[in-house]
Amino acid sequence: MDPTDPQVACFEAGVKFGSLYHQFAGTPISPDSADSLAAAMAEAIENQPHCEDVTVEIREDALRAEIEDQSADYTEFTGRFAEVEMTVDYEGVAVETSMRMDGDYPLMAVDDVDAPE
Amino acid sequence: MDPTDPQVACFEAGVKFGSLYHQFAGTPISPDSADSLAAAMAEAIENQPHCEDVTVEIREDALRAEIEDQSADYTEFTGRFAEVEMTVDYEGVAVETSMRMDGDYPLMAVDDVDAPE
Amino acid sequence: MDPTDPQVACFEAGVKFGSLYHQFAGTPISPDSADSLAAAMAEAIENQPHCEDVTVEIREDALRAEIEDQSADYTEFTGRFAEVEMTVDYEGVAVETSMRMDGDYPLMAVDDVDAPE
Amino acid sequence: MDPTDPQVACFEAGVKFGSLYHQFAGTPISPDSADSLAAAMAEAIENQPHCEDVTVEIREDALRAEIEDQSADYTEFTGRFAEVEMTVDYEGVAVETSMRMDGDYPLMAVDDVDAPE
Repeated sequence: MDPTDPQVACFEAGVKFGSLYHQFAGTPISPDSADSLAAAMAEAIENQPHCEDVTVEIREDALRAEIEDQSADYTEFTGRFAEVEMTVDYEGVAVETSMRMDGDYPLMAVDDVDAPE
Repeated sequence: MDPTDPQVACFEAGVKFGSLYHQFAGTPISPDSADSLAAAMAEAIENQPHCEDVTVEIREDALRAEIEDQSADYTEFTGRFAEVEMTVDYEGVAVETSMRMDGDYPLMAVDDVDAPE
Repeated sequence: MDPTDPQVACFEAGVKFGSLYHQFAGTPISPDSADSLAAAMAEAIENQPHCEDVTVEIREDALRAEIEDQSADYTEFTGRFAEVEMTVDYEGVAVETSMRMDGDYPLMAVDDVDAPE
Repeated sequence: MDPTDPQVACFEAGVKFGSLYHQFAGTPISPDSADSLAAAMAEAIENQPHCEDVTVEIREDALRAEIEDQSADYTEFTGRFAEVEMTVDYEGVAVETSMRMDGDYPLMAVDDVDAPE
């Protein structure tokens, strides 16, 4: 069947999450550069259609722990180092999504779908 | 409200599309290297959870036209140079999605959602 | 033959340029998000070994011209939209490099190699 | 001072290494998809100017060990999972470079510079 508006809204939210993750995975990151990367990630993805709001918080404790365990003083950005929240609005349907650690895996999830009556 | 299974299935499909696009955007590509890139894109994304099948076809005419108009003999991969079809299966819900040109924009779309009764 | 220190310094400078370009190529960008992306690019690459200084200036005229010619109100970052200068220091050898448009191609070049006597 | 041809050749080699690494870092990879990714990486970078030959070998033991230690059955490509050799030729100067593990860090190195007399 053709998708409903809430289903398309969820698809659009997924596109933004995949984009954010795979555009920036591998970026050299240290505690000093964490804030500028978080800001760029959020503003870049907010350019995409139907994307209302993105917040990216770097998990600096996880970042520092990783760097302490290795020889270099920076590492590469990956999902373990961020918590992300995102709001997509498509045809009046608001979708709230997030990425948070689920054990050792950065899980992207749909938290809420709010469709007009 | 909490998302339904078909909504989560659509979210998962979106994640794969955003991943595919932004992981490989910018890759140096020429007609000679088009097939290996298409194969790698499909196999890479098929690793992701709930992803049943990915096909990537490089639009070689568009690629050749771009290269003829410029000084270098290769260019960078972007959405204009590919048609993609993808099937995601989440909790028995099959979602068919595709990326095709819509005028000058590579549009990602949900083509079909097939949920069990 | 084994490389000299100035040769290794130039190799290191090249690594930074390739990293910067291919990490961020494809990032959604608009005039509003240009500054945050430029800052993140510079700070990310400055994390890499032997990298003293990176400046990234977005060519906003080129960016606006691209966006005016198309249907979407953002585009994808590529080398046409930036001028970059970078200083690498390896074993006392200072290498100055830049990326600037050479006709239609964003040319990365070594501008100066300053080795101790 | 202006760079010599061997110095520019080393710069060009560095650009290719940075490109290869940061274009593909973050790509979903499993033992099943390793070969197609390795082929695409090599062919993509061989498109770049002055790049004669690229070989990418996935370190499947390292890849399998990483996957056994975690919940998902794939991981993200990073330098730990590959050995790379590359030959650049610029104005008759042949530069041999490689990326190999140096302890816990994937070290990119210039192995040989062969300039005409």
